[in-house]
Amino acid sequence: MRYVIGIDLGGTKTAAGLVSEDGRVLCASRIPTAARDGAEAILDATATLVLRLMRRAEAAGIVADAIGIGSAGVIDGERGIVVSATDAISGWAGTRLTDGLQARTGLACTAINDVHAHALGESWAGAAAGSSSVLLVAVGTGVGGSFVVDGVPQQGARFAAGHVGHFASPYAYEDASASAVALPCSCGGAGHVEAIASGPAILHSYNRVVPPDNAASDTQAVFARAAAGDQAALLVVSRAAAACGQAIGGLANILDPEVVVVSGGVAGAGPLWWDAMTRAASAELLPALADLRIVPANPASDAAVLGAARLALTLDPVKVAS
Amino acid sequence: MRYVIGIDLGGTKTAAGLVSEDGRVLCASRIPTAARDGAEAILDATATLVLRLMRRAEAAGIVADAIGIGSAGVIDGERGIVVSATDAISGWAGTRLTDGLQARTGLACTAINDVHAHALGESWAGAAAGSSSVLLVAVGTGVGGSFVVDGVPQQGARFAAGHVGHFASPYAYEDASASAVALPCSCGGAGHVEAIASGPAILHSYNRVVPPDNAASDTQAVFARAAAGDQAALLVVSRAAAACGQAIGGLANILDPEVVVVSGGVAGAGPLWWDAMTRAASAELLPALADLRIVPANPASDAAVLGAARLALTLDPVKVAS
Repeated sequence: MRYVIGIDLGGTKTAAGLVSEDGRVLCASRIPTAARDGAEAILDATATLVLRLMRRAEAAGIVADAIGIGSAGVIDGERGIVVSATDAISGWAGTRLTDGLQARTGLACTAINDVHAHALGESWAGAAAGSSSVLLVAVGTGVGGSFVVDGVPQQGARFAAGHVGHFASPYAYEDASASAVALPCSCGGAGHVEAIASGPAILHSYNRVVPPDNAASDTQAVFARAAAGDQAALLVVSRAAAACGQAIGGLANILDPEVVVVSGGVAGAGPLWWDAMTRAASAELLPALADLRIVPANPASDAAVLGAARLALTLDPVKVAS
Repeated sequence: MRYVIGIDLGGTKTAAGLVSEDGRVLCASRIPTAARDGAEAILDATATLVLRLMRRAEAAGIVADAIGIGSAGVIDGERGIVVSATDAISGWAGTRLTDGLQARTGLACTAINDVHAHALGESWAGAAAGSSSVLLVAVGTGVGGSFVVDGVPQQGARFAAGHVGHFASPYAYEDASASAVALPCSCGGAGHVEAIASGPAILHSYNRVVPPDNAASDTQAVFARAAAGDQAALLVVSRAAAACGQAIGGLANILDPEVVVVSGGVAGAGPLWWDAMTRAASAELLPALADLRIVPANPASDAAVLGAARLALTLDPVKVAS
């Protein structure tokens, strides 16, 4: 039995787990990501986290032989480099992820974008285990995704695949079609799924239609008001969910995944959102896709850690020079 | 050097070509598809076409050793069966394509959907030759497509992938957003790309806005009027092209293909459509995709025949019992 380390590095926290070849997380640990301290500091802290896990493993007689890291940003999986990244982590673009971790830990390392890692984890040992292909759609602060076919995340020609939040949604146009005003999107464009369906979009949409002194402070508050029967909140949430479901259904018509896994804070907000989302998705599906399963991710699972570990298992278990 | 037969079987015509391992069509022939005569008659006629090509090849000292067929309909590429099909070919669903052609010709046979064959042909020896991945979008009577990664068309879990015309487009809503009236789509749904961007959609949109005695008789007439400066035609064509380009740009953000090939009668209608399409696509692209190439298919090429032949080359060159 092989053992590897899987890492999930995001803008706020970094999780790592010791994972066995059969897809179990044996022990895990997490630290806040030092997102304002620069790439070297983040790599140092991540390596410390890994070495601590390895010591715990060795105390139990287990030796990990490789590292996989899923990281925020566009990641060149072949060279192990951060191609580009948002401001969530200062100075992250250009970081030599695999080289940096290999030098610090002495273990072979491989890297991938964190959403692709998440999808790979769901495909390997999560909500989509046993399926030949899975479309993951993550709905939270942004709307992202990944399409895994035969256990391989489709990373794209520029490692930029998976931006499922950045295509046009009729719901992202204000009471009017493409000839009218489109909601601005985080990408700089407008009229995209993310501009209507993300958590911040839900908050923004709600606060625009209620009196200022009744504004919600965060997305969860909008969900809570919707659950309590607030009509404006109900409308905003169901519209965001319908936009997401319509996008998922249309994407399924194009990709024909065996199963769709929907994850993220917005997706986990409750049945009001989930039911509106699945209704809109079903309305969109072609007859050939009528049996498509759309399932929630298990929020308690370490899917991204598992996916990063799965990738590490593709490496030869050879120690590199440290 | 191996030689195989590639077949492109559509609702109106069936083309076949003798193709060499290096991607050249050495000779080709075509017949009308006997679309109303039933599956057995179509298979008989197709086999006759193949045997005629083989005799021509043998006269030149060339022996073809396998057959690939790209066919209209949803094709189970593993079992070589037509899963479902439109009315364009009567009784086509359920046809055992590969068994039927193997029994009639004595050659090993493999099958795939015709749009996937087309994309594979463009990827192998056409407009996208040398690219690691290609998104083909075909805009004609319908809007279809295929995504080829590393020379493999992504057929989907149910062999239903590629319905790129059946996702929501803001342009397919009448002067209003998702809360308003959506244009009906050929799939039975509404508000889809195909409902605004296909050839019939262009004709229909135009004839709705002009006086009945000025109606156009076909899509080409609408293009001709647009080229001559007819304002209604210009608006309809540019709107259809923008819907298509917006869809292509959004899809590229999700799939990150190295190159996009756009084919079909509408795509070949001229610079008015093409320029509006590429403008809309560019407006949609994320910065990471800024270098995306969007190129026209070569309408004179036998891309689908080539793609079907490429698939035949994956078969062992073994004669099956006839």
